Order: sequence, then C-alpha cells, then structure tokens
Amino acid sequence: MKSAQIPNSSFPRIVIVGGGFAGLELVKSLKNAPYQVVLIDRHNHHTFQPLLYQVATSGLETSSIIYPFRKAFGKQNNFIFRLAEVQKIIPEKQLIETSVGEIYYDFLVLATGATTNYYGMKEIQEKSFALKTIEDAIRLRNQILKNLEEAVLVSDEQERNSLMDYVIVGGGPTGVEVAGALAELKKHVFPTDYRELNFVEMDIHLIEASPKVLGAMSEKSSEKALKYLQEMGVKVHLGVAVKNYDGKVVELSNGEKIISRTLLWAAGVAGNPIEGIAKAVLPNGRVKTNAYNQVEGYENIFAIGDLACVVTPETPKGHPMLAQPAIQQAKNLAKNFKKIAKKENSLIPFRYKDLGSMATVGRNKAVVDLSFAKFQGFFAWLVWIFVHLMALVGFRNRFFVFWEWLVSYFNYDKSNRLIIEPQRTQEHHINKENTQ
Amino acid sequence: MKSAQIPNSSFPRIVIVGGGFAGLELVKSLKNAPYQVVLIDRHNHHTFQPLLYQVATSGLETSSIIYPFRKAFGKQNNFIFRLAEVQKIIPEKQLIETSVGEIYYDFLVLATGATTNYYGMKEIQEKSFALKTIEDAIRLRNQILKNLEEAVLVSDEQERNSLMDYVIVGGGPTGVEVAGALAELKKHVFPTDYRELNFVEMDIHLIEASPKVLGAMSEKSSEKALKYLQEMGVKVHLGVAVKNYDGKVVELSNGEKIISRTLLWAAGVAGNPIEGIAKAVLPNGRVKTNAYNQVEGYENIFAIGDLACVVTPETPKGHPMLAQPAIQQAKNLAKNFKKIAKKENSLIPFRYKDLGSMATVGRNKAVVDLSFAKFQGFFAWLVWIFVHLMALVGFRNRFFVFWEWLVSYFNYDKSNRLIIEPQRTQEHHINKENTQ
Repeated sequence: MKSAQIPNSSFPRIVIVGGGFAGLELVKSLKNAPYQVVLIDRHNHHTFQPLLYQVATSGLETSSIIYPFRKAFGKQNNFIFRLAEVQKIIPEKQLIETSVGEIYYDFLVLATGATTNYYGMKEIQEKSFALKTIEDAIRLRNQILKNLEEAVLVSDEQERNSLMDYVIVGGGPTGVEVAGALAELKKHVFPTDYRELNFVEMDIHLIEASPKVLGAMSEKSSEKALKYLQEMGVKVHLGVAVKNYDGKVVELSNGEKIISRTLLWAAGVAGNPIEGIAKAVLPNGRVKTNAYNQVEGYENIFAIGDLACVVTPETPKGHPMLAQPAIQQAKNLAKNFKKIAKKENSLIPFRYKDLGSMATVGRNKAVVDLSFAKFQGFFAWLVWIFVHLMALVGFRNRFFVFWEWLVSYFNYDKSNRLIIEPQRTQEHHINKENTQ
Repeated sequence: MKSAQIPNSSFPRIVIVGGGFAGLELVKSLKNAPYQVVLIDRHNHHTFQPLLYQVATSGLETSSIIYPFRKAFGKQNNFIFRLAEVQKIIPEKQLIETSVGEIYYDFLVLATGATTNYYGMKEIQEKSFALKTIEDAIRLRNQILKNLEEAVLVSDEQERNSLMDYVIVGGGPTGVEVAGALAELKKHVFPTDYRELNFVEMDIHLIEASPKVLGAMSEKSSEKALKYLQEMGVKVHLGVAVKNYDGKVVELSNGEKIISRTLLWAAGVAGNPIEGIAKAVLPNGRVKTNAYNQVEGYENIFAIGDLACVVTPETPKGHPMLAQPAIQQAKNLAKNFKKIAKKENSLIPFRYKDLGSMATVGRNKAVVDLSFAKFQGFFAWLVWIFVHLMALVGFRNRFFVFWEWLVSYFNYDKSNRLIIEPQRTQEHHINKENTQ
C-alpha cells in the first residue's frame, strides 16, 4: 500500500481518527504538546451535530454549523490533516490503512463516534432518512421541500397526504427537536409558501418504543416535553415500535399503519468501530476501554467519545453517548499524553462530571436538567440557546446562528428553504447533453 | 400529458419561464396587476449570479446569494410557483409542456437566460468547470479544495503541479474575478491551511482570445484590470485561444501547453431557448424580439433578459447580456402588461438606459465605468461593494454578505472552505452497506 505522505517529525506521532467533539477537543488540547498530531476525517470540516436538525428544517444554513479543520488548526504547528477514511488497523505493525495510504502511529486514538442503528432492519435502512452528517441534513431538507413541490401537483388526497405527512422514529432529543421544528414550519412558514395546500392535512408522527419521550432526562422534563409536543400538534405514539417501512407504509407494532413518504430514523445509535481490533468491540459496536481510555488489549490504542465504552466498576455500561463525555475524555487523554511525554507513570483515570442535559421543542419551549436544578419553559429555552451558541466553533458561526435565531424569533420565519442538489443536477445536465 | 394543476383564476394567466434577474423583476412588478402570474424554474430559488465566483472561491456560503422564490413572493396573492423544467412550447395551443405537466398560458414570457457556450468543443464541455448555477459553484469549490487535499499526498512534482495550477478561460468579468480570488487564496489563505505545500508552485493562468481583458469595458478599466491581475501574480495570456483540453493538458492556439486538472470555462455564453419557437431563434441561441420584447412571429410570447435579442434599427445585435438590460426589460414589459389589461393599445417600446458596468479583481482593486465617470482602485471597489450589496435579494442575505466581506477585509480570510458532496457520500454509504 502507498504511503499517506505524513511528514517526518522528531516527536512521537499521535494519529486521531475522527474530528467530532472528542477528536476536535483532543487536537486543541495537544496544541503545545511534544507530539506530531495527525487528524484523519472523511470530511474536511467538524460538524456540530446537535444543530443538524435545524439545517434539516431550514432554520440554519449549512456553513454555520460546520467548521473546516484546516481553518481551526492551520496555525497549530504540530497539526497535520488527512482527508481520508480509515479502513483497517494493523496493531502489530502500528499501522492504519486509509483510503489515501498507510500511516504509521506511535499512539492511535479512535474517535469515530456513533452511527445510526437500524437493528438489522435492512428495508428501513434503505428507505429512511438519518441525521448524523451534514449531507444527511441537506438530503432531509431537500426531501421536505420537494415533497411539498410535488404535493401541489397531486389531486388524489391519499397520495397528497403521504407527501405531507412525516414519521419520526425515536423520542430522544433528535426526534423531539425535529418534530417540534416541523410543527413550527407547518404553523408559521409553509401555509404562506404553499397557499394551494391545506396544512391541516400535514401530520407529524413521533414514534417511541418506550413509555416516554426524552427517556434519559428527568420525569418532569420528559412529561413537559410530551406536553409541548402535543400542544404543537405532534401526534406522539408511546410504547409503539416500528416493524417495517417500504418507503410508503409504516407498520407499527400495535398493528396500526401510517402512510408517509418520509420516515426519519432517530431510534438508535451504535458505535462505529474500525476493522482490526475485533476483540475489544462490544455487541453494540462500542469499543471497550479501561479508565484511561486505553482500548482493551492494547497499550497505545485509545478510544474516546461515543465510540468508547469506558468500563469501570462504577460505569459498567460506559458513559452516555453525548458531547460532554466526549469532550471530557479528550481533555483527560490530552493530560495523560503530556504525562507520557514526561515519562510520568501516574496516568489520570477518567471521571465523568455530569453537567446535565437539555433539549428544545420550539420557541420558548425547552427542558433543562442540571445537577442542581431542573426547569422547563422560556428560561430553559434561553439556557439552551446560550449553551449551544457558546459550544459552536468560531465567532463567525456563533454570530450567524445568533442572528438567524434572533430574526426568526421576531418574524417566525425559517430562511433556508433551499433545494440544492449538486450531483443530481450535474447528472441531469450530462444526460441532456448526451441526448442532443 | 398530465396537467401541472395550476389553480383556476378569473384573470388572464402570464407564465414566466425562469426566475433570474428578468423573471424575478417581472413577478415583482406584476404584484397588483390583474393577472395570474405563474413562475416556472428548475430551482426553488433565485441565484444572484454575479457573486457565484465568491461561492466557488470560499468567500461566501451558498445561502447568502440565493433566495427561495416562495419566500420572496409567498405573500403576493396572484403568484403561483412550479418547480419544473420546460420542455416544449406549443404556440398553436397556447400550451407549454413541462417536467410536471402541461400548462396553458394567455401570455408566455421566456426568461431562461444564457448557458455556457463551448463553441462545439465537446471534450472541453465534458472536462471543464462552468460557473452559471449554484451547483456549478459548489462543484468548483469542492474541486479546488479536493485538489489541495490530494496534492499533499503527491511527491511527483509535475503531478502535484497539475493539482495546484488553474486555467481560467475567458477574460470577461467572471474570469477576471475568479482569477483574482484564487490569487488571494494563494497569498493569504492556502499557505496556512496547507503548510506542507509550497504555493510558489501554484500558477493561475487567465486565457483570453482577444487582445485585452474586460473587453466590453473602457480602455482604461481594461488596462488597469490587467495591471491588477499581473501584480497579484496571475499569468495573463492575451490573444490566445484554447484549442483542446483532455482533463489534464490544455492546448493553446500558439502551440503552448499547460498542465492542469482544473479548467474553468468562462469564455462564452449563448441563449438558452426552448423547443417550439425555432423560427425566432438566432444562430447564437438568443431569441429575436421586437422593441416590445415580443418574440418574432408571436403576439403573446415574449422574451426578456439574456435570452432576448431586442432587434431594432438602433440595436441590430440586441443589448449586452447583463443584469441591467434584463431588469429594465422586465419593468417595461410589466408596464405593457398593465396597459394590455386596460385594453390600451399604445405599448411602450423598450429603451435601454446604460447604467455602466464594473468588475472587481481583489481587495481595494476594482474598475468602474459609468456614463459620466470612469474610475479604478479603492473607491471603485467601494462602489462595487455597495452596488452588489444593494442588488442582493433580502436583508438577511445583504447582512450576511456584508459581514463576511467586512471580517474578511480585516483578517484576509475566506471562511467557507468546505467540501460538501451530498450525493457522493450517500452513494458511498450505500455501497458500503451492500458489501457488508
């Protein structure tokens, strides 16, 4: 295999696979450390996943929630980036094989995050939409808008309904947030855009297999979120699972059927491991590590973030798959790398500090669980906004998102209702030329 | 053929094909006119073409220069939109055939603009990039960034050079502006992003068949633009044409060869007519109209904008293919439609008021030709900025573009160096699933 041409360095090389919350934080924390830091990602930008749902529902434009790695770290001297997919780890040679060639590592950090879990249901996987990458968000946005452009052409009521109805599977933060955002589009935006359609016909179904939405949050937040969703007209189905979806008909576990062209699958995540370390991969796809985030069986391979299942007596199932454990693990690992560089043997075990969790349903409607307080409503919504703005990468993105939210608060609009399909148009164009 | 389901109206129906400068202005000007106004476009948004080059060179993000039609006209009661491509006009039945069905018209206005003219050179058409749509701009941006991601992997000097070099064909405003923007990326942005590369190796060639750049502008502006380009390191080849391009080697008419993976073709435009009115189509693809923008041979079919060649004794070759004639023709036609509604027979012939033209090469470097003054440099650059900001649709877009320009003026940065390829990633994803 050819080489990925990483320049030589007098420092040991840390290769980090994945630039999500964990990978990004680790690169940043190793700024002045005596290592060569190689980041590998299949995108040239970090994606702020918590706001993908706003891109999908036309609230934000894409570039506000993504940030180029090379812009973020261009001035960090020990930083090297490769746009690549990692295919295989060869631990005995300290090599990884990537789509752009082999890379040698002294230390390898896996931070590939989570992928959508379809629990083996192939047809759902093929026919549904997911929301894990910026491309997913653009595809869902295009679909929502194309559905309505198609609906104005259809006189058959059932067919028109199938284009206007949405089924969202999974009552976690993503499902709740998308359902809420669609309800706002239905109420404030679409009726003016599509005066020919009657939006009473538009149904938003949220399907959750457990008895409550936001199951990981407090009882009070969960109940309040359900109340918000119902007030906004979302049809919440609790204790019901999806059995199958053929692209048109959703079959539920209670025998009910829903007809819809668009199903968003937000019902499960699984670890996203890489070939070559099979013995450390758990059944849920996460990678088992010790308290120092060392992958089981390897001294110089680490896993952090959603991928890592840090198994200790206190955390037999690891930590929640959220931004905070990822960021905290990255910071702790950076400290340990600095200790390793100084040949100190006393590595620091990772301890998760739960800063709480939150979700938003719509304007003035959010739920926040902190260790010292749980609250819902307008103040929770302000806290949600503040935390998300501060967490975005770069002043430009913070400023643009703040502006969109501020304007949208006053005019109830969502500005980015754009159908942009680079590839499709090009193919079309080429076909047209061929037939000339 | 099925119907495109346009609602019935008691008013006569004007069908406008194309929502560029001309179509957009006509819809707006017919706001309170006693007509049903049906706009057809293959995008769901207007594109501000003069700034496409800034999207392609990472200066602006996509949503700042495009604007959804339904957002623009959602509150205009006589407005109907169809996302469709027009395939054929059947004048004898007053029908157009579109990708979403047939539409009857009382009056038809063709405003499909211009398309890239390759002068029959098929290989160039296949292998080059164009810059007419937002998708074109995204593709060029992706390409520029992917070239550099690939260049860091290549040790062969000639191959690396072919990835870092650019050939821009056509010394009109688009060619000049892209060349200038690439020169700025080379100087201020890329060296920090790609520290492994030596940007002395990056050559930007601008090829123009005539003896000067910006040939439609004044002698002084043309000379100054050339001087700016040369100061910025652009290699300008005047009086030279491109004979062929196979995706790697550019063959010039003087026998010289340039090796480059990326060729932008901005050397010619042609009208973009629709099947069914062949007898009015000129050899350059434009549609011949009289002074009232009526297409030759038809009383109720009009053409405006780049597509229209308004042939009168004073304008035997029509007007320049620019935004201003398009907007002015649309305004005049709207006045005439209002006269027709009142059964007034005295239609107003179109008279072009030349407001001048301008182009920008880089920061503080622009050229402006007005009827009463011609000037270049910093003040011209400010005028260019002001005119372009004011011409953008919507306060949001003006504000975002202003902000990007303001920040970039102080930090010399271009923020949107993002590779986003929705379709490609999806295909990849599907392939990956299939092989599991």
